[in-house]
Amino acid sequence: MAEITLTVCTTCRAGLPDLPDAPRPGARLHDGIARAGLPEGVRLRAVECLSACSRGCSLTLTGGPGRWSYVYGDLDPETDIPEILRGAAAYAATRDGIVPWRDRPTIFRKQSIARIPPQE
Amino acid sequence: MAEITLTVCTTCRAGLPDLPDAPRPGARLHDGIARAGLPEGVRLRAVECLSACSRGCSLTLTGGPGRWSYVYGDLDPETDIPEILRGAAAYAATRDGIVPWRDRPTIFRKQSIARIPPQE
Repeated sequence: MAEITLTVCTTCRAGLPDLPDAPRPGARLHDGIARAGLPEGVRLRAVECLSACSRGCSLTLTGGPGRWSYVYGDLDPETDIPEILRGAAAYAATRDGIVPWRDRPTIFRKQSIARIPPQE
Repeated sequence: MAEITLTVCTTCRAGLPDLPDAPRPGARLHDGIARAGLPEGVRLRAVECLSACSRGCSLTLTGGPGRWSYVYGDLDPETDIPEILRGAAAYAATRDGIVPWRDRPTIFRKQSIARIPPQE
C-alpha cells in the first residue's frame, strides 16, 4: 500500500473569533482525525497555514510525485471526519490520486478548492 | 538552477461564455506565457482543469518534493503575464518555494488560492 499524506491546517479559525482558552477549529480537526485513527497507508501531518483561510477548515491530500494533489475546504471538525477518512482511504488506494467521482465523499466533490497535477 | 514548473489550466473560461471561434481565457494565458518567453529554470505545462474554476484563470507553481506548491487564481491573460513570470522566476530562485513577502508580485500576494507543504 502506497503512503499518502493528509495535511491539516491547525491554525485555521474557520472565520470564527479566536477564543483564548479554546483550540482553534483547525487544531480540533487535526486532533479529531488523529483520535479517530487513520486508514492504512495514510499519515497525518499538521501545518501552519495552507493559505486557504477564506475556505477553512482546510486540508490537503498528497501522495508523492506520481499523484494529483488535492486541497479541500469549508470542512467541519465536528461532522466531517468520517467522510474525510473515507476519502483519504480512497485516495490512498489509487495510483494517480484520481478517485472515481462516484466514490468520492460529497464533501470532496463539493468542497474542492484546487488540485495540482503529478509533478513527475 | 533548479527546475520548477508553471502549470496553466487551459480549459478555463474565467466565468465567461464559451465562444466557438475564440480560444478560452486559460488557453490565451498559456499561449501568452509561452510567447513571452520563460525565465531560466522555469518550464511551462498545460493542464485541463485545476478544479479552481470559480477562481480562474488559474495556475500552479511546483518544484519537486522539497518545495511548497502554490495555486493562484483570478488571473488576467491580458495584463498579468509579466508579473506571473517575475513571480515564477522568484520561486525558481528559492530552495523551498517560499519567496519573501516583499518580493512577491501583488497578484501572488492577493490571489493565492492555496499552498501545499513540501512532500519530503
